[in-house]
Amino acid sequence: MANTLVQQALLSLDIDAARLLRRIEELGRIGRDPATGGISREGFSPADREARTYLMNEARAAGLVPAVDAAGNVVIRPRPVAHGEERQALMMGSHLDTVVNGGRLDGAYGVLAALEVLQTFEESGIEPRYEPVAVAFANEEGALFPQPFWGSMAIAGRLAGLPREPADHHGRPLREALRLAGGDLDALGSAGWPRGSVAAYLELHVEQGPVLERSGNRIGVVDAITGRIVLTLEVTGSAGHSGTTPMEGRRDALTAAARVVLATENLSRDRGLCRVATVGRLEAHPNTPNTIAGAVRMTVDLRDTDVWRAAAAEEALRYALRVIAESTGTRIEVVAETRSDPVSTSRTLQRAIENSADELGLPSEVLSSGAGHDAQMVADIAPIGMIFVPSIGGISHVPEEDTAAVDLVDGARVLLRTVLRTVDHAE
Amino acid sequence: MANTLVQQALLSLDIDAARLLRRIEELGRIGRDPATGGISREGFSPADREARTYLMNEARAAGLVPAVDAAGNVVIRPRPVAHGEERQALMMGSHLDTVVNGGRLDGAYGVLAALEVLQTFEESGIEPRYEPVAVAFANEEGALFPQPFWGSMAIAGRLAGLPREPADHHGRPLREALRLAGGDLDALGSAGWPRGSVAAYLELHVEQGPVLERSGNRIGVVDAITGRIVLTLEVTGSAGHSGTTPMEGRRDALTAAARVVLATENLSRDRGLCRVATVGRLEAHPNTPNTIAGAVRMTVDLRDTDVWRAAAAEEALRYALRVIAESTGTRIEVVAETRSDPVSTSRTLQRAIENSADELGLPSEVLSSGAGHDAQMVADIAPIGMIFVPSIGGISHVPEEDTAAVDLVDGARVLLRTVLRTVDHAE
Repeated sequence: MANTLVQQALLSLDIDAARLLRRIEELGRIGRDPATGGISREGFSPADREARTYLMNEARAAGLVPAVDAAGNVVIRPRPVAHGEERQALMMGSHLDTVVNGGRLDGAYGVLAALEVLQTFEESGIEPRYEPVAVAFANEEGALFPQPFWGSMAIAGRLAGLPREPADHHGRPLREALRLAGGDLDALGSAGWPRGSVAAYLELHVEQGPVLERSGNRIGVVDAITGRIVLTLEVTGSAGHSGTTPMEGRRDALTAAARVVLATENLSRDRGLCRVATVGRLEAHPNTPNTIAGAVRMTVDLRDTDVWRAAAAEEALRYALRVIAESTGTRIEVVAETRSDPVSTSRTLQRAIENSADELGLPSEVLSSGAGHDAQMVADIAPIGMIFVPSIGGISHVPEEDTAAVDLVDGARVLLRTVLRTVDHAE
Repeated sequence: MANTLVQQALLSLDIDAARLLRRIEELGRIGRDPATGGISREGFSPADREARTYLMNEARAAGLVPAVDAAGNVVIRPRPVAHGEERQALMMGSHLDTVVNGGRLDGAYGVLAALEVLQTFEESGIEPRYEPVAVAFANEEGALFPQPFWGSMAIAGRLAGLPREPADHHGRPLREALRLAGGDLDALGSAGWPRGSVAAYLELHVEQGPVLERSGNRIGVVDAITGRIVLTLEVTGSAGHSGTTPMEGRRDALTAAARVVLATENLSRDRGLCRVATVGRLEAHPNTPNTIAGAVRMTVDLRDTDVWRAAAAEEALRYALRVIAESTGTRIEVVAETRSDPVSTSRTLQRAIENSADELGLPSEVLSSGAGHDAQMVADIAPIGMIFVPSIGGISHVPEEDTAAVDLVDGARVLLRTVLRTVDHAE
């Protein structure tokens, strides 16, 4: 096909909005609790497998070629590729698995939009310079098997450090669950994509926050995915009868923990040391009305797109913990910590997304992602770009998670334009 | 017996310390968890019934006459009383039931000391003006059937307002459990003692707090039992993703709850509005590290010996709740409240306890009880007095609850002296 013809074809190319919305609707029935409307498709659960089968059937019906890699990722290509004929990939995707009682769009939307764009390409007869590939990454949420980002880590070659025989919270082995999903724990290395094999990775996702809804912009251009530091704290005081123990001399683990909650909020809200800071989990012991809490276990979650700011916030928190422990007569220990570094998206892909939105008349803005995404992992091996569409009420991971149909369609259109533009740009 | 002979007998009268300690030891094995050493004798549970049987057997072996009233109280008298021959009672007692995994002394000590004093009287051949009666009140703690002070309320004629068919947390009816313990739900009224039938009620108890241990005094003369206001609060905010929801505009139920915890502490510790103020129970939802809490359920426990001070503290708390709700964008509702008024002890009995301690060379001090006791209920129908002995470490309701043997013995001696003095005083 001559280049000018390609250009013309590109300009007229559009996704099939009805098809996309139908698939979102159909996929949203899998793992759905009729009572709450919430979706429970924990990675590698039967509902998750059903969703994967649905996706592969849709891909096959569209004349595409789905396959499952050793990590359980569903990788959809336009057609089989012979050895030696590989092109660089333009990878698009997200995940099909959900949290317990989550929403129907988180992850699933990005996968179905990737399929839609891939199918649109195939139907157009265009043969772009890069091979468009749609991926449904396995177990992004880690709701059942506590190895979140499992599939995207495998693709980035990051699974070496994981336990030999991962298991879920009940001790059930991942090995068997992975096998049922078409994967192979002994061949995880084969799921890795070498650096350079992916020209770009694009992930379309619901924002999961209120920024776009508040600004009225229709498209979010993600500049960075925030890094996250989660500290698990154990506050140890002294239990006692709430009626007989004078205030003087109490070592109340819950009043200490309350100070930690407020110090955490303060880090971000008042001192601006990091983007967000949250205590989401807090458990008091013995947790009865007439006993002073002897111990509290709690988590502090700090996020920023700048690794140094996150580190400074953590340092300020640890200082606050020492002050609080001293003033309350308690002991406060950090008993566990997990951290993921922030990741920047490609400036080139940011511009491509911005220009695509402009072209479609969709106001956009640059924002950062507070949630983690598979793109974070893929960033190890390829430039990444992320597109957000507005979340109604800014909520996610709940049954009420939703996005207007027009935004779902326009988001997929921006993904398609961005892919085309990226292909253009590369040529 | 001539009055001078009585006086002489009284002065030489002493309890059998070894017998008292043996019974404390033996009773402490009933319902004991060998792993923790904690005692679980929830009211009307099999272990509680075993304890009641033990007590009645000991009473019978001592030649005394135990009986179970309709509410399940074990009432021990020197001998059967014919109609028309009733004397006013000098009642002593406490309870045999415990919290889950509690200590061996809370309640049990007071019952066994009452038995010991009653037996000492019988063995002395003294016929005091008042009939000494030892009572083990049923279900003081309410650990299984949530009707604490059940037995003492019945004796005070206070059970009219209770549900017709009380049940435990699992819906199991009290009716059957009460029947197994020898009671009769349909005859509760018969358990009441008319006003005037009890000349005085004396309760010996471990302090359950650190006041005596800190001061070094051996005997506590209780001037009042604190009133208690327990408010159950529901804080409603808005759940959200902890990474994607900006600090601005959050309605975090847990940061609001943390402010309530500190405002509660502040009521007593800094503002001195009531004796003690405690948040002992707090549950966040959904309680996961990466979700802003959408709701928190918590209790606030306020206590004071002055009913007006307690009311003022509650009013200040409610004002603070409104301010916190406003400033955090949450809704804070009081969804349940229980309250018991403070009760003063008899000045006459206070002096009698004080003089008895002096006589025995035991330094004493006046203090108030932060915990609730059966005496509170009996106060409806009789003057009450309470004697405290030191709690090691000031702790109670835990397996480690303890009091030195010498204090246990001396406490019972003070109880005996006080009973004698009360008899004296009345004559």
